[in-house]
Amino acid sequence: MKLSVKILDIASRGVLLHYDDAKQIGVFEGDRVKILNEKTGTATADFVMTTSSLLVKGTCGIYRKTNDMVGLIDGDTTEVRVAIRPVSLEYIRNKMDGARLTHDEITTIVRDIVNDDLSPCEVTAFVTATYINTLDIDEIEFLTRAMVDTGEKLSFHTSPIVDKHSIGGVPGNKISFLVVPIIAAAGLLIPKTSSRAITGAGGTADLMEVLAPVAFPASEIQVMTEKTGGVIVWGGATNIAPADDKIILQEYPFKIDAIGQMIASVMAKKCAVGADIIVIDIPVGKYCKVHDVVEARKLARMFIELGERLGMQVECSLTYGDAPVGHAIGPALEVKEALAVLEGADHPRSLIQKSTAVAGMALEMAGKAGKNDGERVALEILKSGRALAKFKEMIEVQGGNPDITSNDVKPGDHVYVVRAASDGYVISLHNKALITIARVAGAPSDHSAGVYLHAKQGTYLKEGEPIFSIYAERRWRLENAIQEGRRLMPVVVEGMLLDRVPHTQSSSWRMSRI
Amino acid sequence: MKLSVKILDIASRGVLLHYDDAKQIGVFEGDRVKILNEKTGTATADFVMTTSSLLVKGTCGIYRKTNDMVGLIDGDTTEVRVAIRPVSLEYIRNKMDGARLTHDEITTIVRDIVNDDLSPCEVTAFVTATYINTLDIDEIEFLTRAMVDTGEKLSFHTSPIVDKHSIGGVPGNKISFLVVPIIAAAGLLIPKTSSRAITGAGGTADLMEVLAPVAFPASEIQVMTEKTGGVIVWGGATNIAPADDKIILQEYPFKIDAIGQMIASVMAKKCAVGADIIVIDIPVGKYCKVHDVVEARKLARMFIELGERLGMQVECSLTYGDAPVGHAIGPALEVKEALAVLEGADHPRSLIQKSTAVAGMALEMAGKAGKNDGERVALEILKSGRALAKFKEMIEVQGGNPDITSNDVKPGDHVYVVRAASDGYVISLHNKALITIARVAGAPSDHSAGVYLHAKQGTYLKEGEPIFSIYAERRWRLENAIQEGRRLMPVVVEGMLLDRVPHTQSSSWRMSRI
Repeated sequence: MKLSVKILDIASRGVLLHYDDAKQIGVFEGDRVKILNEKTGTATADFVMTTSSLLVKGTCGIYRKTNDMVGLIDGDTTEVRVAIRPVSLEYIRNKMDGARLTHDEITTIVRDIVNDDLSPCEVTAFVTATYINTLDIDEIEFLTRAMVDTGEKLSFHTSPIVDKHSIGGVPGNKISFLVVPIIAAAGLLIPKTSSRAITGAGGTADLMEVLAPVAFPASEIQVMTEKTGGVIVWGGATNIAPADDKIILQEYPFKIDAIGQMIASVMAKKCAVGADIIVIDIPVGKYCKVHDVVEARKLARMFIELGERLGMQVECSLTYGDAPVGHAIGPALEVKEALAVLEGADHPRSLIQKSTAVAGMALEMAGKAGKNDGERVALEILKSGRALAKFKEMIEVQGGNPDITSNDVKPGDHVYVVRAASDGYVISLHNKALITIARVAGAPSDHSAGVYLHAKQGTYLKEGEPIFSIYAERRWRLENAIQEGRRLMPVVVEGMLLDRVPHTQSSSWRMSRI
Repeated sequence: MKLSVKILDIASRGVLLHYDDAKQIGVFEGDRVKILNEKTGTATADFVMTTSSLLVKGTCGIYRKTNDMVGLIDGDTTEVRVAIRPVSLEYIRNKMDGARLTHDEITTIVRDIVNDDLSPCEVTAFVTATYINTLDIDEIEFLTRAMVDTGEKLSFHTSPIVDKHSIGGVPGNKISFLVVPIIAAAGLLIPKTSSRAITGAGGTADLMEVLAPVAFPASEIQVMTEKTGGVIVWGGATNIAPADDKIILQEYPFKIDAIGQMIASVMAKKCAVGADIIVIDIPVGKYCKVHDVVEARKLARMFIELGERLGMQVECSLTYGDAPVGHAIGPALEVKEALAVLEGADHPRSLIQKSTAVAGMALEMAGKAGKNDGERVALEILKSGRALAKFKEMIEVQGGNPDITSNDVKPGDHVYVVRAASDGYVISLHNKALITIARVAGAPSDHSAGVYLHAKQGTYLKEGEPIFSIYAERRWRLENAIQEGRRLMPVVVEGMLLDRVPHTQSSSWRMSRI
């Protein structure tokens, strides 16, 4: 059908048709049409939206990003026809019906996701289908390979290339700031791409940004890594495994993290940077993504098997995840804590132990330490100051100030200290509540907002002693965070009233005993 | 955060934020923000989209439909804050995890769908989750009630109110054109709302539109029904069970039809028009939605049980679905065929039998015919001309020409007759292929396009005798349809070459016998 063109200043993709014209062409909202620039012969296909008021019959509204492909101008005539429905919709439908997808099918789906040939809703359906009808190890392998193949890759001329990844969920997990410099200081290459927080109080990229720029194209990441041995950059600025971000975007409203996709997402990024030695840290705990050791071992085996299939040597560390790592939560507070350890501080123990354990595993795998000697070697590199020197090189190569010290990194000006209402032991920390408070205080976008824990499980507190402090850059955010703190009670001190049991509950209990 | 307003001329809902502002506010694409008109105190919440190029920092693009709620103008200042995430996202997530949803949870989801408080992608996730983790009968009841309660209802002062519905999938199923007039002629009320074709060659509403307007508000449907006893109108023009259309829109790309939603969708419409006697026709066949009688009986029991729960008396007819009903497929051709029967034609037998059987069930249920006597009474009403007279009244009350006869309804000018290549019996008809050919020829939007079958299963054809004819309004569409016909071979005559069996297949067969 020939229609008169109207370019719509909307920076996304789409073709808006009058309802009656759509009916004539034989398409519905959500279908695709092909539009043709008859002068140049170029054509593109895009999603149909329909209107009965915004356009007059006989005209066709073309969104800006769609028009980038065909270069039409207002008043041009275009031929609009039904476009072929992408075959990946069939594959997604098959997954809904419980089928196992082949390598070709998954590659087609991922390619269509990367090229925006599937609508966001269609990607949502894929995500939901694979969340419910979980991917098996073959499908995870296919998904990983497809994610790698549809993006950019690094190719180093030396080996081994080391990488690490922590499955999220633990607040304050700043171990990359020790692990990466230790490994690089040992003479290995570790091009660490990391993410920004989505639901957390600060991703590794958010933290590094306190000290240096983190957004670099893949080619620069490679050059910088070859120069210094290590970098800590933001993966989102690269075109490495670009399908992943589009998939995560659709998981976000439901806070789901389908296990197969999570594994593929991690491993695709490692594979694309050319890593051949990888340590995956799996925190285990009530509030973590992985709740018990059995589940964690199963996940670890999947990572290891997938690594074997892709030619990468993977080992996993199962770590305690029911308390924050160290005491600080929020970008500046965490960076300050990590820098202090690099500078020689002998605490927090949890941070030093976890970092040297993970770094030690990589050193052993790469032959830089003997069996069971990795942690000692890693600690030695840390204590010797070589890790600090390496970290300063990393800051400098990324464009930050290498002379910065932990004293220079300041938490937010607005502070509120929460104190113990009575004497007692700290018996429980609620990770998610701590993250929420840090977020309400402004983290991660306000870099110096966050939470500092003065006491952790097992600490004995006297009445009036500080339990934790909330830092914020802006007063109103601090006040909101204090409210949240009161509501959520993230730290439980023995003897505190936890909750009042309502009367009706006890009577129903009595009834159930009769 | 205070932002300067820019109204965007986009007729949908949304708030466009600069990426950096979104980060400051603490929202991601897909989150919701609340925007406030400080002058009037009105506020609304809507979905966030982010840009780093289309807006400068500090401004907030508000889509037209969103601004309808708050009435801001360019240059106004608005306070933009994180809005509460709808709790229905939790419920959808729970369904993904296999939970059964409660009445309150389903009502909340449906209300959010109707109010556009869930994004299309979020509705897709709901649809996908309930397709995979099927709804049980309780959940179907809750969904039905929620669909009814979130839309308009008719309330007749008399009873019984009769209704019928055919589960789709059979081409040429024009039985409503006989069933509705027969029931109305028997003195009963039947406010038949129907749909347009989505994947078929013509829905009942598309067919009726050949004779009269079909788009009326609910109040007029009630008045017209009270006047004539029956109408055949388009449900999509009403606000009856509006959630349904939004759900179907998200099922469409995947051509799924989740059974629980399908049942709820049908029954919600019947319940909302106040029907208390309902016949559900379930065609059974290889190319139908329901493939075998066992499955059909199960579906029938669900309809009947749901009817009981909602206070409606439901009976189901299981009908043969492997051949079109009658000979005509496509709006004008089907209307012509149905009108001819009302005028006294004694064929096609399949159309007359099915229509009088379904109408007869309703007559028995309503006490207008004795047990097992309904079909005879229905046939008598048809033969007597009372059904024709009633149908003319219906056409007139809807604003069409009541003097129209079957001779006045013409098929498309462009015709191609497909003839038998050799002598033989017709052994198989391929329903989906017939529908595809009719659609390629222009049906349903070109009313007089379609397919007319000269021979059905069991007919003996001599070489050169016509098998079927394709009609179109436009020559190019006829030509495309002929191509499709050649490719799809919708009618198989005994002795025709069906397919060539490749050599490898026979050798693997031999191997499997060893």
